[in-house]
Amino acid sequence: MIRLTQIDHVGIAVEDLDRAVEEYRRLLGVDPAHRERVEDQGVDEVLFAVGSSFIQLLAPLRPETPVGRALARRGPGLHHVAYRVEDVEDALEHLREEGARLVDDRPRAGSRDTLVAFVHPATMEGVLVELVQERP
Amino acid sequence: MIRLTQIDHVGIAVEDLDRAVEEYRRLLGVDPAHRERVEDQGVDEVLFAVGSSFIQLLAPLRPETPVGRALARRGPGLHHVAYRVEDVEDALEHLREEGARLVDDRPRAGSRDTLVAFVHPATMEGVLVELVQERP
Repeated sequence: MIRLTQIDHVGIAVEDLDRAVEEYRRLLGVDPAHRERVEDQGVDEVLFAVGSSFIQLLAPLRPETPVGRALARRGPGLHHVAYRVEDVEDALEHLREEGARLVDDRPRAGSRDTLVAFVHPATMEGVLVELVQERP
Repeated sequence: MIRLTQIDHVGIAVEDLDRAVEEYRRLLGVDPAHRERVEDQGVDEVLFAVGSSFIQLLAPLRPETPVGRALARRGPGLHHVAYRVEDVEDALEHLREEGARLVDDRPRAGSRDTLVAFVHPATMEGVLVELVQERP
């Protein structure tokens, strides 16, 4: 069973995180809410709260990371969309049953102490999808 | 003054709308909430409600439209992100003052009887941004 409760965030790949944060702050009139290094994914990320969702700016720690490779291939821009789900294990089971191609077979730790898993873009019309479960 | 209240939607360019709708319905476990032809933008769109936001699947009516050209250039995938704002005129004024490059100088009619305006990706780290004001 999969239950989407919100768009958790939209991830945007950028080259210069500080410059991008200042640009988004100034243009969109929102202050950054959270900054975190996620070694597992090879990124520094900054979140801006927009209603019940976040905008996530992502800069790679090294070129040979998924976000580093995306930047080299396509330049800065939209990178992935993350759906907040009630239970990421259940969501993965549903997707597996439906024949989806998964990047992560099981949940792993995301930022903000969440549990996350990625779904391959080939399954979702070219869109890299992340599932996010908040922990109590 | 710009006031973002929610992510209104994430727009995804697809080649075959019916196939994509069926895929999203099946994989994400959500039913389509709205379907509309927006002649002005040269698209057929289908919206899925996810919490307070929408996922928008977009198929071009003709190749020589913005979404048709995006598909030819990059294939299906993430196309734009739309922020819900209190007042799109005020938001455009703020962005103009901050030196943003605008696609639309003034609001125009969007789907769902909204008022919308697009901001050029050069201004927002490679992301095509739409502003959406719901009308009472």
